[in-house]
Amino acid sequence: MNNPVGIISMQFVRPFLSKDLSLFSHIRELGFDFIELLVPEPEDQLNLHEVRQALADSGLGVVLAARVNMQRSIASENAAACQGGIDYLRYCIDSAAQLGATIVGGPLYGEPLVFAGRAPTPADDAQIARRLEATVSALRQVAPQAADGGVALALEPLNRFETDIVCSVAQGIEVVDAVDHPALGLLLDTFHMNMEESSLPGAIRAAGSRIVHFQANENHRGFPGTGHVNWAEVMRALHDVDYRGPVSLEPFRRDDWRVGLPIAHWRAPHEDESEKLRAGLALVKSSLTFAGVAG
Amino acid sequence: MNNPVGIISMQFVRPFLSKDLSLFSHIRELGFDFIELLVPEPEDQLNLHEVRQALADSGLGVVLAARVNMQRSIASENAAACQGGIDYLRYCIDSAAQLGATIVGGPLYGEPLVFAGRAPTPADDAQIARRLEATVSALRQVAPQAADGGVALALEPLNRFETDIVCSVAQGIEVVDAVDHPALGLLLDTFHMNMEESSLPGAIRAAGSRIVHFQANENHRGFPGTGHVNWAEVMRALHDVDYRGPVSLEPFRRDDWRVGLPIAHWRAPHEDESEKLRAGLALVKSSLTFAGVAG
Repeated sequence: MNNPVGIISMQFVRPFLSKDLSLFSHIRELGFDFIELLVPEPEDQLNLHEVRQALADSGLGVVLAARVNMQRSIASENAAACQGGIDYLRYCIDSAAQLGATIVGGPLYGEPLVFAGRAPTPADDAQIARRLEATVSALRQVAPQAADGGVALALEPLNRFETDIVCSVAQGIEVVDAVDHPALGLLLDTFHMNMEESSLPGAIRAAGSRIVHFQANENHRGFPGTGHVNWAEVMRALHDVDYRGPVSLEPFRRDDWRVGLPIAHWRAPHEDESEKLRAGLALVKSSLTFAGVAG
Repeated sequence: MNNPVGIISMQFVRPFLSKDLSLFSHIRELGFDFIELLVPEPEDQLNLHEVRQALADSGLGVVLAARVNMQRSIASENAAACQGGIDYLRYCIDSAAQLGATIVGGPLYGEPLVFAGRAPTPADDAQIARRLEATVSALRQVAPQAADGGVALALEPLNRFETDIVCSVAQGIEVVDAVDHPALGLLLDTFHMNMEESSLPGAIRAAGSRIVHFQANENHRGFPGTGHVNWAEVMRALHDVDYRGPVSLEPFRRDDWRVGLPIAHWRAPHEDESEKLRAGLALVKSSLTFAGVAG
């Protein structure tokens, strides 16, 4: 398998600003094929034309990562939040078209939990049904625009602490099949799958051709190869379903093990991680290569 | 290995009230050796003498699970919350003595995240250091009372979304070694370890004789055997460190896979789970037995 392998921009910096465009050549030199860029917020004041030029200059591809919140939340029962989610997805699709990106991935359904400071609370049957309905309806509204812009939307199941909408691959499949539009597929992330799936390879095989983006993260979000995700099995499953799309890395756990450290919060790198990134990339590329080799 | 295997009271009911004492004989009949009971809250109006009698009548042992919150939080920088945490631990030790329990386990350090509706936020170096100091100081204050009552305190690392104090086994070891009191040990839970450890067996071996309580949970908190935790390896590691303490099950994931379901929130059983509980118990008992068998 010869999938493009990329790295999330947050590995280096957040927010990503105009001054950070010089990172592209560094990322290319590390050996990555693309950058996964957070969809730029207006306040980032990024000139998308400049970004596109810098990508072309460095030879780096790009995938976009959508960021939702309680005001951008198509699964919400609050009409304004739901509309905010729809508007945001349209904005993401526009941004992708401007940047030449063909994939926008993330928890497109909204309704974050821990990162919004929202505790899990019981939901009744009617509320649960309405969440699914609202999600499917909104995705049906934006999918044609994505198709027109040549953009695939990749819906990502998140673990139970990060959302209460789509946590498992089976739930993701249910939403994608209900929307039933070629512009909507799945983004699978092994970090979340490690928490929610009975079998990572089994979930990948079940998702099959719906997978349009993939994130190869360790169970603890450290560098690939430093945890217990079975990369050989994961990549073999991707091979079995003939997955040819991008594979992103997001190993921003950082090497800091102090008691009292908020591990879940993003932290800037405090050391040069180049060697570890190269080793993680090599491991992922090797696993992809061997997935298609009989032995 | 012949460790006692138990089940958390939340598998059946929450809160656990006087009317639920009849569950003890059912739990014993299912084959469990003990119940892990949430430390009764005053509003539960449980008569601890009655509970102790019911335990004796059913032949069931008991382990206590402490529940912290932002007002019971020894790692807190808020003096009242820190004192509230100390008072609560003293209350837990008293409750254990009254019930004849010899172990109180849980995230004794406090500072919950997602279940308190608290989002992870950055902490500076001084704050991180103070959290450790406060935790160690408070545990030193209460450990002698635990020893006097014949109670072991079992500090449980939780995953990064549930706390920002002690997430890894290495962090737990650091706290236990800093407190350096025989009444304080570790509670390891494979659910959290699956998210935070590079190697579950490696972490168990590192914790070694500090382990005083163990929770055998699947990666997705379903019934043991329905996920990807390698029970043979886990139990062999427990055997290697000569662990003879209790092993608790908490498989309250429930068989409900609807989109929009808040998986992280506790839900009451909606079906008779007896067959699955027996199967999970048998699997754990078999793995424990085989851990000590050369083959």
